[in-house]
Amino acid sequence: MTTTHQLHSKLTAEGRASLYFEQVELPELGADQVLIQVEAAPINPSDLALLTAPMDLSSLSTEGGGFDTVVSASAKPGAVEFFKSRLGLSLPTGNEGAGTVIAAGSSDAAQALLNKKVSAFGGAMYAQHRVANVMECLPLPEGCDAADGASSFVNPMTALGMTETMRMEGHSAIIHTAAASNLGQMLNRICLADEIPLICIVRSEEQVALLQSQGAQCVINSSSAGFMQELTDACDRYNATLAFDATGGGSLGSAILNAMEGAAARHMTEYNRYGSDRFKQLYIYGRLNTSPLTINNAAGFAWSMGGWLLTHFLQRAGVEVMMRMQQRVVSELETTFASHYTATISLEQMVDVDIMRAYAKMETGQKYLVTSSV
Amino acid sequence: MTTTHQLHSKLTAEGRASLYFEQVELPELGADQVLIQVEAAPINPSDLALLTAPMDLSSLSTEGGGFDTVVSASAKPGAVEFFKSRLGLSLPTGNEGAGTVIAAGSSDAAQALLNKKVSAFGGAMYAQHRVANVMECLPLPEGCDAADGASSFVNPMTALGMTETMRMEGHSAIIHTAAASNLGQMLNRICLADEIPLICIVRSEEQVALLQSQGAQCVINSSSAGFMQELTDACDRYNATLAFDATGGGSLGSAILNAMEGAAARHMTEYNRYGSDRFKQLYIYGRLNTSPLTINNAAGFAWSMGGWLLTHFLQRAGVEVMMRMQQRVVSELETTFASHYTATISLEQMVDVDIMRAYAKMETGQKYLVTSSV
Repeated sequence: MTTTHQLHSKLTAEGRASLYFEQVELPELGADQVLIQVEAAPINPSDLALLTAPMDLSSLSTEGGGFDTVVSASAKPGAVEFFKSRLGLSLPTGNEGAGTVIAAGSSDAAQALLNKKVSAFGGAMYAQHRVANVMECLPLPEGCDAADGASSFVNPMTALGMTETMRMEGHSAIIHTAAASNLGQMLNRICLADEIPLICIVRSEEQVALLQSQGAQCVINSSSAGFMQELTDACDRYNATLAFDATGGGSLGSAILNAMEGAAARHMTEYNRYGSDRFKQLYIYGRLNTSPLTINNAAGFAWSMGGWLLTHFLQRAGVEVMMRMQQRVVSELETTFASHYTATISLEQMVDVDIMRAYAKMETGQKYLVTSSV
Repeated sequence: MTTTHQLHSKLTAEGRASLYFEQVELPELGADQVLIQVEAAPINPSDLALLTAPMDLSSLSTEGGGFDTVVSASAKPGAVEFFKSRLGLSLPTGNEGAGTVIAAGSSDAAQALLNKKVSAFGGAMYAQHRVANVMECLPLPEGCDAADGASSFVNPMTALGMTETMRMEGHSAIIHTAAASNLGQMLNRICLADEIPLICIVRSEEQVALLQSQGAQCVINSSSAGFMQELTDACDRYNATLAFDATGGGSLGSAILNAMEGAAARHMTEYNRYGSDRFKQLYIYGRLNTSPLTINNAAGFAWSMGGWLLTHFLQRAGVEVMMRMQQRVVSELETTFASHYTATISLEQMVDVDIMRAYAKMETGQKYLVTSSV
């Protein structure tokens, strides 16, 4: 075998968005490279940003079949402007996945992975095969199958990265939005195990019940009338000064900063026109809400808001912290870091229009796993 | 003399805002305290937040005369909510000023200041006298009069604090908004002396000409059609990744982050849906624009935005850095750190309705100095 099929995404300046398979040459393996036969890869929200986010899904049309399928759609209003730096590029997709190493370069490290199950991260995982450097591979424990290991990077390392950030920056509790997501449920399990106070913000009573059934101790519904009061009370109770926001748009981030400040203000003994001196941090790690972020600032001057990206965090944290995190993921892969898939599809089904519309919805708790057919 | 007149500000829950003098007892001096006869105090934008910001200035009315004057107005729409934590409080005013030490406590440090001119910071400076701890006093050089020393804290330490922040956080250039202000002109003089690239953002061609006449090398008019292009070009030329924004509302802060990112994107060799990894920092140090802050984020994930307050910065920088900064202010008080006053008024004139309307305007380049009559 000298070629493989990779799922690619393209958006043109003329406003057509498409998904299709590229048949790409497999290169000679370098000493530190391995060839993975991909067996399972999840569809994460961060994958959809590349796959379906630019598409008006009501206008999907399809040509060809199997690996020759090309599915295309009109771009959503604003998408050409929003995604202007990718126009015309044919981009491989799939952030993470797992499979079996079926060929290895000459180095000892590469040879040690031969015939082993590994997970990998770094793009182009919606494919039959992928060439990876040994440093990009995480060997899975004996007996673990590819489905168990497929999601061992994005969600586990992000959730652990949040708790590491909390410690590195001197906070003692975490506020999390979109908290009923797969990632949010995972963060809840970590916080319960590590005794970290976690304030979960969700959008419905069903999601409140779901998280409570998993032992979450503080779940707040942002659509309830008493939201700001409840959130301020919770910030006060847990001395919460750090939040991770998956929405990244609208006014929720601002409301969280204001609630933190409201809690701090309860303990001020005299008026200060600059607000409290309790430092408050909001990190934006997703863009579920693509409307502009509005900050109606009543949080004083001791606050910061910024982007949080796993790769930037890992660079800052360093190799030792990263390896400690990975060790924990591997050893708790079927408990703390277990992912639950609501459907399994084949690589070719990723370009089936009905299935695309389903996985593009990103409904809370729904998660698709792609299994490759070779 | 056992009492002094202090200018106070009050806002009630019923929506009346007023300025009036309180006659307050002067306490016995502690060992490390001195009594300053206040001779000059500037009206800074940060003072107006307490003095006139809550007032509908078209509704001013006045009673009494001299130190018995009470001037009051209806609160501006939204002011009662915005200032809710100060409702009903009688607040002393005046962030900084200078005068002569006319009595001193028993310690050597206090006695050393007796009969000296000092500047002081920390509130209640719109008064005939003020008791201060020796640590709050900065002795002025021989021959320096109170007017020269009156503004030796807020603007000089803020402008120097910006350049210190730049070095502490590893940036190499500064973007500044409202750059034609007294503070902005001072920052320009510091940056010219220290060879720090400074990008000045102003709102009119008159302000462009003013700063250029003072040697500013990069002045951009935010009301020009080519603003984003010019700003992006400037960010690229100077590798600018740090901005200080005095407006704190509207979309200017977002535009600056986007321009920084646009400059970084010019040097990216491949598409990254998370944007560049060049870290971009925006600090908000004022609220000239009280509308909500809108972030139309095209700055990727490597950015941070937050409040910047001189007192928080000094705590973080430590006593040694603060003393080095103060030393420089004192030695360049009549050059780099000179303030220019467009009018001088007496303490009682601060409650004259016509004068209030004039100083409340905060026109760029206008600055009032209050001189106390005892």
